[in-house]
Amino acid sequence: MPEQSLSRRNFLWAVGATGGAGTMFAAMGALGLAPTAVAASRFQPPSASDFHLQGRAAGSVVILGGGVAGLISAYELGKAGYRVTVLEPRDRTGGRVLTVRGGDELTDLRGFHQRAAFRRGQYMNAGAARLAQWMVTLDYCRELRVPIEVFTNANADAYMHLRPMPAGQPVRYRTAKADTYGYMSELLAKATDQGALDAELTADDKEILTGFLTDFGDLGDRYEYNGSTRRGFTTWPGEVGVPGVARADVPSVSDVIASGVGWYFSFENGFDQAMPMFQPVGGMDMLPRALTRAIGAERVKLGCRVTALTQAATGVTVTYSDAAGRSRSLTADYAIATMPPQLLVKLTHNLGADVVAALSAAQPVSAGKLGLEYRSRWWETDHRIYGGITWTDTEITQIWHPSYDYLGERGVLIGYYQFGETADRYAAMPPKERETTAVGLGERIYGAKYRTELASSFSVPWSQVPHVEGAWHHLSGHSPQSPVFTPLAEPAGRVFFAGDWLSNMPSWQHGAILSARKAVTLLHGRALAAR
Amino acid sequence: MPEQSLSRRNFLWAVGATGGAGTMFAAMGALGLAPTAVAASRFQPPSASDFHLQGRAAGSVVILGGGVAGLISAYELGKAGYRVTVLEPRDRTGGRVLTVRGGDELTDLRGFHQRAAFRRGQYMNAGAARLAQWMVTLDYCRELRVPIEVFTNANADAYMHLRPMPAGQPVRYRTAKADTYGYMSELLAKATDQGALDAELTADDKEILTGFLTDFGDLGDRYEYNGSTRRGFTTWPGEVGVPGVARADVPSVSDVIASGVGWYFSFENGFDQAMPMFQPVGGMDMLPRALTRAIGAERVKLGCRVTALTQAATGVTVTYSDAAGRSRSLTADYAIATMPPQLLVKLTHNLGADVVAALSAAQPVSAGKLGLEYRSRWWETDHRIYGGITWTDTEITQIWHPSYDYLGERGVLIGYYQFGETADRYAAMPPKERETTAVGLGERIYGAKYRTELASSFSVPWSQVPHVEGAWHHLSGHSPQSPVFTPLAEPAGRVFFAGDWLSNMPSWQHGAILSARKAVTLLHGRALAAR
Repeated sequence: MPEQSLSRRNFLWAVGATGGAGTMFAAMGALGLAPTAVAASRFQPPSASDFHLQGRAAGSVVILGGGVAGLISAYELGKAGYRVTVLEPRDRTGGRVLTVRGGDELTDLRGFHQRAAFRRGQYMNAGAARLAQWMVTLDYCRELRVPIEVFTNANADAYMHLRPMPAGQPVRYRTAKADTYGYMSELLAKATDQGALDAELTADDKEILTGFLTDFGDLGDRYEYNGSTRRGFTTWPGEVGVPGVARADVPSVSDVIASGVGWYFSFENGFDQAMPMFQPVGGMDMLPRALTRAIGAERVKLGCRVTALTQAATGVTVTYSDAAGRSRSLTADYAIATMPPQLLVKLTHNLGADVVAALSAAQPVSAGKLGLEYRSRWWETDHRIYGGITWTDTEITQIWHPSYDYLGERGVLIGYYQFGETADRYAAMPPKERETTAVGLGERIYGAKYRTELASSFSVPWSQVPHVEGAWHHLSGHSPQSPVFTPLAEPAGRVFFAGDWLSNMPSWQHGAILSARKAVTLLHGRALAAR
Repeated sequence: MPEQSLSRRNFLWAVGATGGAGTMFAAMGALGLAPTAVAASRFQPPSASDFHLQGRAAGSVVILGGGVAGLISAYELGKAGYRVTVLEPRDRTGGRVLTVRGGDELTDLRGFHQRAAFRRGQYMNAGAARLAQWMVTLDYCRELRVPIEVFTNANADAYMHLRPMPAGQPVRYRTAKADTYGYMSELLAKATDQGALDAELTADDKEILTGFLTDFGDLGDRYEYNGSTRRGFTTWPGEVGVPGVARADVPSVSDVIASGVGWYFSFENGFDQAMPMFQPVGGMDMLPRALTRAIGAERVKLGCRVTALTQAATGVTVTYSDAAGRSRSLTADYAIATMPPQLLVKLTHNLGADVVAALSAAQPVSAGKLGLEYRSRWWETDHRIYGGITWTDTEITQIWHPSYDYLGERGVLIGYYQFGETADRYAAMPPKERETTAVGLGERIYGAKYRTELASSFSVPWSQVPHVEGAWHHLSGHSPQSPVFTPLAEPAGRVFFAGDWLSNMPSWQHGAILSARKAVTLLHGRALAAR
């Protein structure tokens, strides 16, 4: 069970929250306990011809929130001829699909103000940052001609820096992995060879297995692990006379086990994290930007903060303050609410107690990212790391090397990606202090250039971002399939609900998109049936 | 020892030839048996000022062969003011760094003629195709402003198709890996728990290890492996009501062991193959093209086939036939010979018996690649595979999905990458038969579109390419550090030698480049010392 390890590793707790939930629900599905699965590709987008066949016109829809769920809702409804209006309180669409570039500003709920000083062409994806091949998000990239490139999620030459490691020195990911796989293979080969698994394995199994383990662990005589070229070299093989010097500092099996390094290798095998991953070229917000253009910018009203939502027999009325601060109202045939549930529940509304109970079950989780712009790409030239993640058990948790602009002049590292209580603590620091603290911890891994080459930084504490107030949500122990959420997933009235949190892939655009498509499908069926 | 598995897996034999040699020489280095290693970064490029300080001018150098070793030699010498002439028999530079685009032609030694019909923007890298982060090749990409992008070397969603697999059906790479790691973890956890490894492990070790294995294998109660979400889903998690259906067809431990699938997972941990890998944007030949421009196209003479090389006390004379077929000769102060050793040895020359013995020790190895251009990227839309390698134990060995132009209209798969005797057999087929045979085998994995969507193909049998006649070389059991090669690595006269085969990284541009830098360094030292 991944859940066991989650309690051991703060970073896995948050990242794995998704994987853990997926595991549980998938198992329910396999056991027949969950509703019958419907292939995602079965989505039938609403079509204008659906109405034409009836001799009627599509209705109007107001959409609360211009994040991915709201934009996909508006885009799919717009294609069918619905008159859509998106109300977005912030000055841009995309929600947590946030790409920060030079000039971008953030004043958070504590009043901390930042203005990004990143050089032109440099950016950080402060929220959503990666796409798996199977995710529906890629289909919208294709449809809207948003080019993609590889996001490197695991890098053999990035570092692992765990305090229990021998000598406390960072080691390369490939080195730690070779040692872990090497000793695992040695131990299993010895146990097999000595007959300890004769109850489990046939003689044929044993012969093939020990052969495989010798290869998988790069074992020597008598199944001993004595290091491997897979650990890397202190001098890499080159011209004649330079055969290469393999790293010789092979730790003992007890040191490898005690270091805790092994727990980090499951991440790259996760159903949602396995390589290759992808990102839009130029920033993750290229997709919400393309969606906004496709919807029509005039239908997307920025700076509009909704304060009330009233459902009646004939329509839905939304009250909001516009970008100039004037109070306005808008009535439409239907509404799709894609706001964060903890903010939606605070509106003046008449959605009823069941809806309130469902919205209240979704509780925000904190996370934060720090972008560090450097004057040189010293991690490429000095450390020969091109993209990928360095892991540490200090509170910065992860350092991401940029997966774009390789060989370029400058670059933006992600200096931390942290969760829960750690993220809350950093969110309470002034931005400069976040930078100083994180840079001090990173310097232990990378040396002085981590400090001396720094040009500027920008940090996003998601719990403190106005109109967002969280990184993602947990459902208070409920499955998304729980009856608690039926009033949101299968609503009875004119108000529909969508968001990544209302899906089986919370925190992923994939979940937001499929949630939106479900809402759109329900709304469209209702509109066609209405008289 | 990787060598054991090499004999079991044809594909690993050839790919691993490098890894195996590296292992051996690295071990020699670690044991102090090999010459002291010199860091590759210590290269001091020759400088014009070296001569100015002496009040002299740089000399002239004729370079035989316009592959990477020849181009790097010319580039580095040219920067220092040497008058360089590169003689290249083919109609382009780059040698085995060959990118095939629409309109490119090949008439091989058997007389088979092909003309590539690839659509504009589509290409195949028929030879060199990937770069590791630590390789010096990337430094030249930086210096010459050749942009790079990720080459996906392992893909969780690509297929493995081995004949011993249960039901003979292809499985996803992630599925096979989850089962292999799952059972490996189960067996080791059980053996550990039952005390079979008490001689190797302390009580603390055992507790941490079984915890790690539970995570690494995604094990359930009593350390049983019962499948995992890491295997992937038949229906991926989506909106509420679609929790996802995990793949349920978990094979038995004996089936997994007997399938032989485990041997394939070491590849992605190899010191030269671990992810991420890279490629120049637009084709691998962007680097030799940039080098050729930097050298000056007028100094690179195409279509010039060398027939004789004569060393005298005062210089080196090269006889060659030029692009018009006229016999010419050229005398320079020095020569660098970068031709394939089995062709170089056939020239009329006076290099002596020791040089002949050394050149004769390098024997060419066969390999071949097939490019298949498709009218649609059905592997992306239907199989959701974006880049990476499908492995099979049939003679096509590997299928590569393109790591560029994702989401595009068309794409070029590599339909086989095969070695040795298999490559020789395909080389003997007419190109159309290679295509038909390979497509028939690929269709078993991917279904009908593998045949019906095919637009055109182009195949390169390296043993049959004029003036190349091989994919790479083995050294007849010698280490590159063997005294056999001293006459080439530390030559006494005016002729120097370079090539990937004369390095500890045969078949890699990294080896060719460092070999060339060594030759340039020796030559420059000789030139400065000469009177």
